[in-house]
Amino acid sequence: VFTHDLRSIGVEYEVPPAVDGPATARCLIVVTSDAERTLNTYLGAASGLTPDHIDPALIARAQVVYLEGYLWDLDAAKAAMVKAMQSAADAGTKVAFTLSDGFCVDRHRAEFLELAEQRVDILFANEDEILSLYQVDEFDDALQRVRGHCEIACLTRSEKGSVVVAGDEVHVIDVHPVDQVVDTTGAGDLYAAGFLYGYTRDLDLATCAHLGSLAAAEVISHLGARPEVSLAELAAPLLAG
Amino acid sequence: VFTHDLRSIGVEYEVPPAVDGPATARCLIVVTSDAERTLNTYLGAASGLTPDHIDPALIARAQVVYLEGYLWDLDAAKAAMVKAMQSAADAGTKVAFTLSDGFCVDRHRAEFLELAEQRVDILFANEDEILSLYQVDEFDDALQRVRGHCEIACLTRSEKGSVVVAGDEVHVIDVHPVDQVVDTTGAGDLYAAGFLYGYTRDLDLATCAHLGSLAAAEVISHLGARPEVSLAELAAPLLAG
Repeated sequence: VFTHDLRSIGVEYEVPPAVDGPATARCLIVVTSDAERTLNTYLGAASGLTPDHIDPALIARAQVVYLEGYLWDLDAAKAAMVKAMQSAADAGTKVAFTLSDGFCVDRHRAEFLELAEQRVDILFANEDEILSLYQVDEFDDALQRVRGHCEIACLTRSEKGSVVVAGDEVHVIDVHPVDQVVDTTGAGDLYAAGFLYGYTRDLDLATCAHLGSLAAAEVISHLGARPEVSLAELAAPLLAG
Repeated sequence: VFTHDLRSIGVEYEVPPAVDGPATARCLIVVTSDAERTLNTYLGAASGLTPDHIDPALIARAQVVYLEGYLWDLDAAKAAMVKAMQSAADAGTKVAFTLSDGFCVDRHRAEFLELAEQRVDILFANEDEILSLYQVDEFDDALQRVRGHCEIACLTRSEKGSVVVAGDEVHVIDVHPVDQVVDTTGAGDLYAAGFLYGYTRDLDLATCAHLGSLAAAEVISHLGARPEVSLAELAAPLLAG
């Protein structure tokens, strides 16, 4: 099912289905009426990620590799991510990294700070995560700290929109309006997806951030973490402008 | 009454009461339950402002002179403001200018752009006003345009907080929380007051903006455009931090 779904939307997906071993990861998500949620995750086979699973040739073919901070909890997965980052650095592939969640940042602050400064080109973080990373109370303090730490930092702020900093550039981007926020699951990843879509097409950073906001707005307007309409069609007016 | 009120809070106020001529300006403000308002203004004696009323020695003694875009509607007042700006420039006094309102910017866009680029050191504008000044739809577009136009630009965004840009520095500052927004009259001027208080004491720009947010939060939490509590006491924790 996953293989078909992914290939049908144009994803190059090389992973053969497993015939034995642990089950695919599942995550049971309870969504409340205020659109917030509680996650109960079984990592399953994902917890068995090791450096052997990383194919440097595949990473070298990519413009950007997107890595998830959550996996830093597991030693083998951490080693796999380090290998992926090194492969990316060797090949000139950009490393995008999401801090994943505030508790995750709490557990790995020192290492995440080192990653942000030394290995990550494009950092994605929401407000909780970036405040936690720098142990500050004010968004602006975190903003000043992250400037210069990464080539690009994309800080998402829920209804306050997002701020993108890259060297001397700072962009303050509003959310794309939605009628009703139903379920915020996937908002961060969809923002990253939209942003990286624009980035890999050499669009200016403000347009990249708008694409992120647009994709995030779609996914929070219904239950579930996958868009229900074509993001390409949604983005067409923006890309034409 | 005004003289007493102003002097009692430490304002140096040199204007003798008039014994004849037009009345003091009045503004009848209708405030709706959503805290927005409609202004009916009679400028009265204020419409008689001319360059003769500007005392260059007084301006030379100040660190900052704060000018109101509204007065640009009247030729003599405009000449008075130009004289004030020139006196300030000659004396090394900084010129702060507020765009006042979006309609006002519509009427005087070309001149306000020239002022922003050539005569204003510290520009205050809300979102409507800055979008109107640059005739753009997106806040970030206005932000990029205003960078470099003024030494400092303070852009207030109602519940979205404010953004302060000054050369390479960009600060994104949240609003100071209020229990209930009752009447937004005075918010812009109190923000400017708080900001300039900090500015004239050489505080960093983020602290200046926080002082502005704090003063604005006080004045929007009740009817009327004057603070009802001591702003100095309100600001004490911030200044101590």
